[in-house]
Amino acid sequence: MPTDSSRMPAAEALRVDAQHNRTRIVEAARELFADAGLDVTMTDIARRSGVGVATLYRRFPTKESLVAEAFAGQIEECASVVEDGLADPDPWRAFRTVLERVCAMQAVDKGFTGAFVSTFPDAVGFDRLRARAEEGFGELTRRAKEAGALRADFTFHDITLLLMANSGIVADTPETAVAASRRLVSLMLQAFRATDAAPLPPAPPLGLHHLVCPPTP
Amino acid sequence: MPTDSSRMPAAEALRVDAQHNRTRIVEAARELFADAGLDVTMTDIARRSGVGVATLYRRFPTKESLVAEAFAGQIEECASVVEDGLADPDPWRAFRTVLERVCAMQAVDKGFTGAFVSTFPDAVGFDRLRARAEEGFGELTRRAKEAGALRADFTFHDITLLLMANSGIVADTPETAVAASRRLVSLMLQAFRATDAAPLPPAPPLGLHHLVCPPTP
Repeated sequence: MPTDSSRMPAAEALRVDAQHNRTRIVEAARELFADAGLDVTMTDIARRSGVGVATLYRRFPTKESLVAEAFAGQIEECASVVEDGLADPDPWRAFRTVLERVCAMQAVDKGFTGAFVSTFPDAVGFDRLRARAEEGFGELTRRAKEAGALRADFTFHDITLLLMANSGIVADTPETAVAASRRLVSLMLQAFRATDAAPLPPAPPLGLHHLVCPPTP
Repeated sequence: MPTDSSRMPAAEALRVDAQHNRTRIVEAARELFADAGLDVTMTDIARRSGVGVATLYRRFPTKESLVAEAFAGQIEECASVVEDGLADPDPWRAFRTVLERVCAMQAVDKGFTGAFVSTFPDAVGFDRLRARAEEGFGELTRRAKEAGALRADFTFHDITLLLMANSGIVADTPETAVAASRRLVSLMLQAFRATDAAPLPPAPPLGLHHLVCPPTP
């Protein structure tokens, strides 16, 4: 929507217009990343936001800087999900809730996992948050095992495996994708429980950096 | 490899050359489909096989006809996996083995699931085999439930969910992909067991036709 900047001083009107463009760009980028993952081009984003390509590059010189801004809220949310888990005194509930919340975020936003695991030179905060999340997952895993709630042969790789499996879900609507993800996570969590666990094949050497954007339908 | 057709009658030499081209095209298509899914173009396939695009289209007028020939063996194998399962007197072993074998096929070949679930007008045999596989899965599910081996709230949609989850695996090597797939399938099968099953969220309405090719790394 255009701004009524006609009655402002020229410099202020320019700042307001620039801020509006910035907001429109970030909103368009979020929508496109959510639908199709991080592979969308800067041209696609300019077209969706209704600004020129030159304006887009003036605000965001690289796609990485735009990804960083578009996902800043979710990356923070993911970090706070892990912090909430670490603050929970019940080790199994903490472990379960963190995986449920992270998988739910991944199910509604195709760009999220890619943004989280990509290494962006312009967005050093992501690396720090990812490292913190990995440490947090490790600590939650250790606690759940010590409490005897999580199977002894569970490894950190199994979290990556769950996130990869969750990223494979493709559905016609976001509601179906979320329902499918919930059921998958519930099944996997039952398999992760220590009770009645049968032996598993060895864990494959998969780290979070192996996650990529899920397919575009 | 070129054929030594110099000492054959001209018509026979032509036939031998044509057969060689056909074989090279199908081999190139199989390699490309396995690595990158069904999205590769006819031009890519011509380049990899070393034949001209015109020759490629003379042998295979549509990509569908080439997909059908490239995957004929695997579609037959998939059908025989289901038949083997139906012939097994142990309902749980039958159910488990069929899912393990189908997921192992899917793990090594990115094109397989896409080929299996796509509807190709030129390859009516696929539709028949897919329908037969769906019937077979349904019958194996029914028997495993009747035997009390499979959780009562398991639905046919959960097979699609497992295949989608399996298609989300991305790894640096085929060996890692297979190891990851084995571990995922083993976890899911433990969750599918009737023993100690906790309630699940509702099954999402996913059919095999919702499966798509997995992402190109």
